[in-house]
Amino acid sequence: MKLFIANQNYSSWSLRAWLIFSQFKLDVEVTKLKLFTEDFYKTLEGITPTAKVPTLVDGGATVWDSLAILEYVNEQYLQGKAWPSNSLERAKARAIASEMHSGFFDLRNELPMNIRARRKVDLTDGARKDIARIDAIWAEQAKLYPNGWLFGEWSIADAMYAPVALRFQTYSIELSEGAKAYQQKVLASESLKQWLEEASQETDIVEEDEAGVEV
Amino acid sequence: MKLFIANQNYSSWSLRAWLIFSQFKLDVEVTKLKLFTEDFYKTLEGITPTAKVPTLVDGGATVWDSLAILEYVNEQYLQGKAWPSNSLERAKARAIASEMHSGFFDLRNELPMNIRARRKVDLTDGARKDIARIDAIWAEQAKLYPNGWLFGEWSIADAMYAPVALRFQTYSIELSEGAKAYQQKVLASESLKQWLEEASQETDIVEEDEAGVEV
Repeated sequence: MKLFIANQNYSSWSLRAWLIFSQFKLDVEVTKLKLFTEDFYKTLEGITPTAKVPTLVDGGATVWDSLAILEYVNEQYLQGKAWPSNSLERAKARAIASEMHSGFFDLRNELPMNIRARRKVDLTDGARKDIARIDAIWAEQAKLYPNGWLFGEWSIADAMYAPVALRFQTYSIELSEGAKAYQQKVLASESLKQWLEEASQETDIVEEDEAGVEV
Repeated sequence: MKLFIANQNYSSWSLRAWLIFSQFKLDVEVTKLKLFTEDFYKTLEGITPTAKVPTLVDGGATVWDSLAILEYVNEQYLQGKAWPSNSLERAKARAIASEMHSGFFDLRNELPMNIRARRKVDLTDGARKDIARIDAIWAEQAKLYPNGWLFGEWSIADAMYAPVALRFQTYSIELSEGAKAYQQKVLASESLKQWLEEASQETDIVEEDEAGVEV
């Protein structure tokens, strides 16, 4: 399998797709492309119809969306174990993952992923609402699975929220106790540490994702 | 199963989830709530954490996102047959469905679903790009499956794009030949006709979704 990703400091969707390979130690050849460069568009041209990352190429299959990649890998290589095995839990996990996939626009706009930075931003009501909702999701699941992933074992739902744990660190967002415990679990995981290590070697600045003021 | 939807004239996400029940003649009790009314929020309070439609309640399972509902119903009641059976095609179908689920913001903002209206809107470049991309998806699949659904048999990908067929009718968007053939197939389907019939009995106006000028 070949996975195309972008700058690890900035590309939250790349991180989401990459995590499933890391968590389950699946063989994958990762190609990192620099956002908004000629090389980025040139490489993806002919591979993906949308020139977006992440994109997965696996033999004849090309999958150009993070959630679709996660579902594909789960079905093809993991016998479904990247979702909770219980159908009620799987339903909830899918709803939570989809909520991230299709929403939280204010959070995404105002608090772009920028791992190396420590910033302060003025939040709109919309972003505050997004943060409160994510806090509620994390805290509710932390009550059900103390010290665990959102559904006990690691699942695609955790992949979807991992970049948010990083954003909350970058912008010093205060969380409730349960949500904070989950955030810390994400940040301390081996997969995240590897991603952070690789991201720390990057020096490129993507102005579009430089929000807030230094603290 | 209980499915909560909103005004059929306007609620594109409701239509997406509703279609799988209609296409496969699954038993479901549909509750229609009027957008932005007190009754809407009151009814959903305690059922869903986000007060959004569509929401599906099935015994102990509550699913509050259209794509998650479609995946849930497909797994629980359809033995997976709402996705293409071939894994390469399923990968592509998921990518296309996810592209709609997480994107096409300009199209969604500028051409809100409004079944009963016939309007003209000034499109931004972003919306034109969205339309061109959807035209390309439809035309590519129409070449592979002339007169068929996107992947031959009806799939979740068709559910995701059905509201777009309606939008293109409302705003008289010109399409390539293949894309137009697909649009016409969607509009002529029994499921859509039932939805249109029910929508036509509504009289409420939702100002937020009244874009463009009458033609």
